[in-house]
Amino acid sequence: MTSPLRLGIAGLGTVGVGVVRIIQQQADLLELRTGRRIEISAVSARTRDKDRGVDLSDYAWEDDPVDLARRDDIDLFVELMGGDAGPAKESTEAALAAGKDVVTANKAMLAHHGQALAETAEAAGRVIRYEAAVAGGIPVMKALTEGLAGNEISRVMGVMNGTCNYILTQMQATRQGYDALFAEADKLGYLEADPNLDVGGIDAGHKLSLLASVAFGTQVDFEAVALEGIQSVTLEDIDAAADMGYRIKLLGVAQITGRGLEQRMSPCLVPANSPLGQLEGGTNMVVIEGDSVGQIVLRGAGAGEGPTASAVLSDVIDIARGLRLPTFGQPATTLRRARAATAAVPAPYYLRMQLLDKPGALAKVAAVLGDAGVSIDRMRQYGHADTSAPVLIVTHKVTRTALDEALEAMETTSVVEGTPVAIRIEEVD
Amino acid sequence: MTSPLRLGIAGLGTVGVGVVRIIQQQADLLELRTGRRIEISAVSARTRDKDRGVDLSDYAWEDDPVDLARRDDIDLFVELMGGDAGPAKESTEAALAAGKDVVTANKAMLAHHGQALAETAEAAGRVIRYEAAVAGGIPVMKALTEGLAGNEISRVMGVMNGTCNYILTQMQATRQGYDALFAEADKLGYLEADPNLDVGGIDAGHKLSLLASVAFGTQVDFEAVALEGIQSVTLEDIDAAADMGYRIKLLGVAQITGRGLEQRMSPCLVPANSPLGQLEGGTNMVVIEGDSVGQIVLRGAGAGEGPTASAVLSDVIDIARGLRLPTFGQPATTLRRARAATAAVPAPYYLRMQLLDKPGALAKVAAVLGDAGVSIDRMRQYGHADTSAPVLIVTHKVTRTALDEALEAMETTSVVEGTPVAIRIEEVD
Repeated sequence: MTSPLRLGIAGLGTVGVGVVRIIQQQADLLELRTGRRIEISAVSARTRDKDRGVDLSDYAWEDDPVDLARRDDIDLFVELMGGDAGPAKESTEAALAAGKDVVTANKAMLAHHGQALAETAEAAGRVIRYEAAVAGGIPVMKALTEGLAGNEISRVMGVMNGTCNYILTQMQATRQGYDALFAEADKLGYLEADPNLDVGGIDAGHKLSLLASVAFGTQVDFEAVALEGIQSVTLEDIDAAADMGYRIKLLGVAQITGRGLEQRMSPCLVPANSPLGQLEGGTNMVVIEGDSVGQIVLRGAGAGEGPTASAVLSDVIDIARGLRLPTFGQPATTLRRARAATAAVPAPYYLRMQLLDKPGALAKVAAVLGDAGVSIDRMRQYGHADTSAPVLIVTHKVTRTALDEALEAMETTSVVEGTPVAIRIEEVD
Repeated sequence: MTSPLRLGIAGLGTVGVGVVRIIQQQADLLELRTGRRIEISAVSARTRDKDRGVDLSDYAWEDDPVDLARRDDIDLFVELMGGDAGPAKESTEAALAAGKDVVTANKAMLAHHGQALAETAEAAGRVIRYEAAVAGGIPVMKALTEGLAGNEISRVMGVMNGTCNYILTQMQATRQGYDALFAEADKLGYLEADPNLDVGGIDAGHKLSLLASVAFGTQVDFEAVALEGIQSVTLEDIDAAADMGYRIKLLGVAQITGRGLEQRMSPCLVPANSPLGQLEGGTNMVVIEGDSVGQIVLRGAGAGEGPTASAVLSDVIDIARGLRLPTFGQPATTLRRARAATAAVPAPYYLRMQLLDKPGALAKVAAVLGDAGVSIDRMRQYGHADTSAPVLIVTHKVTRTALDEALEAMETTSVVEGTPVAIRIEEVD
């Protein structure tokens, strides 16, 4: 009989309670699958006296998660408090120093301090696992680190913030603007305390930086993620994109090019009939492209008690079974510092502009684009009763730099009203 | 420095060559990710003198895979010959007896002999891994056995035969019948030597039986899979299904009910806007439903050199990294023998019948259905110039037994021409 695996759980919010619940309700199943008893020794949270809907009376209580992390009667420290620094980081470091393994759902902490924590853990012979940090219940870190480990990865993409995808798909479905849907999401409790984490793309950007590290063997580099939120996406663009066979998603893309590692988290157009385009509501999706496997798509709930707790448990189970891998899939000391490449990969772009009703206006626009090396794939001009008309253009592949030059030159033509909207089209099956 | 992991590869068809290619081309990447050198010591195949497009000159050659399996200079036996018995099984048993781990892509062998092989392996302290046996490049065995191991699984579904899905989607796209598309698939080399393995659902049924074992902790029981191929699917049904918002797929479904384990591999209707409904061509998809995680969808290439070799490599890498799990996720001796339940789970059905142009014909049909306890959700009657008219019915949930009674009674009404078509509608988001 193998000894039980003893957990200390710090953080008893939705996810922490979900983890306690699974361990209590599925104790026998977990033992059957791991060959060990999985037990909770102690817990910690900000408030002790609170009915959380689970019985915690069998577990020791610690007010301070650092004390919890150091307890002799735990083997594994489960960090579910969140926050990139402060108690989460302090207690994680304390756990590693005390010889404990760590499971965490904390994407912010790993995005900011992943390299240092991984080096500390590996020097101490400890593991850090974080399946729950990326795309909730989808076992994507496992798929990338293990299931597809025979592949050289060429690109990883993901819709990994359910709130943003909910807002964008509801805009299209209900014909309401961004502000109205933002207010609704807020009322439904879908937003983080700092909503910019969601709608500004930061939360999803954290996740992308972790995926990129494992995919490309590079040091996690969140600062290098080109972030753009969904705040400026208009119903007009959603409609125009739909009209041309696209959907607008807050899409994360990481890929290695000759120029370095490109990481973007921004609104993109994707084909309406692709798996990414068909993703509605709060569901998450990750698309992984490898040299041997081709394209793998993973889809599931990106948040919520059950899905996130399921991901935490998968890490706990791996550790119970004796699986010990480096944090980012290869030793932290071998991870390369990738040069950050910004928009180095050319892509087609969607452009929307308001064209004044002047003779030769369209020809001028086409000339400006042509001069900057931007060629037009498709164009659509809508009827108008006004003095200006909306024009939609889909370009052929172009670098963002060339496009920006063209857009700047556009201002001098005096035939375009306001600033043109430009959104990248991510090419994906 | 850890010692290298030394492979013996039996079978040098598409997949075997793919595995050799990855090990040769990605040697450094594999070493970085596993901490060990992955080497090939010896290979075996039916024909030695054949240009396979890879250099095999560094490897010892064995004519007999059993001899290969017993060689002292291999740690891991990679079985890629196929066939449920014969050399594949003999050499696998020889490898286990000689203290080697086994990686195989052989769904037929495991579907028929998985329990015995798992017991043998576990008694000898060896592992058998078979990611490549199910859904090609999709890391689904890993997702189920590890990534979702904290879940009690309620249902597993899959479109896992690319050839069948190709034929069905091409029927709809090209307006050709089954026979024409079967001939085309044959010409394109998409069919197994015995095409019934594909179009009869056997190959996909093998895969389903393996998924079911891991999902429910039951002994693999391929004989209990209710098999129905796609040979009788007509363009008429594909069109009628589309007209009511469905697609017809060769869908595998495994679920545990109070009556036992239900395993079906048969043509089903699924909602056209669900991920399963949107799956076109040769791509595979597996849908897993767990009590905590909800629904997880995995999609990718189900066959081909690269994807299948990628899956083989993931098993090799796991073994190189020291991951050692029981074959079916829990010790083989603890797997239950599930009672086989046949169509115990009620479902809505799609019915198509040709109704004679007689007064009260429709009322008679409705009465027969009602008497058998089958209630009608939707009905559609098409215009007709003939003496009979096609009628489509979607029933509410009903057991297959009750439905069969109703269909039998239908014959006595003398208002229905020929035999009605009945296809299950699988309810899935």
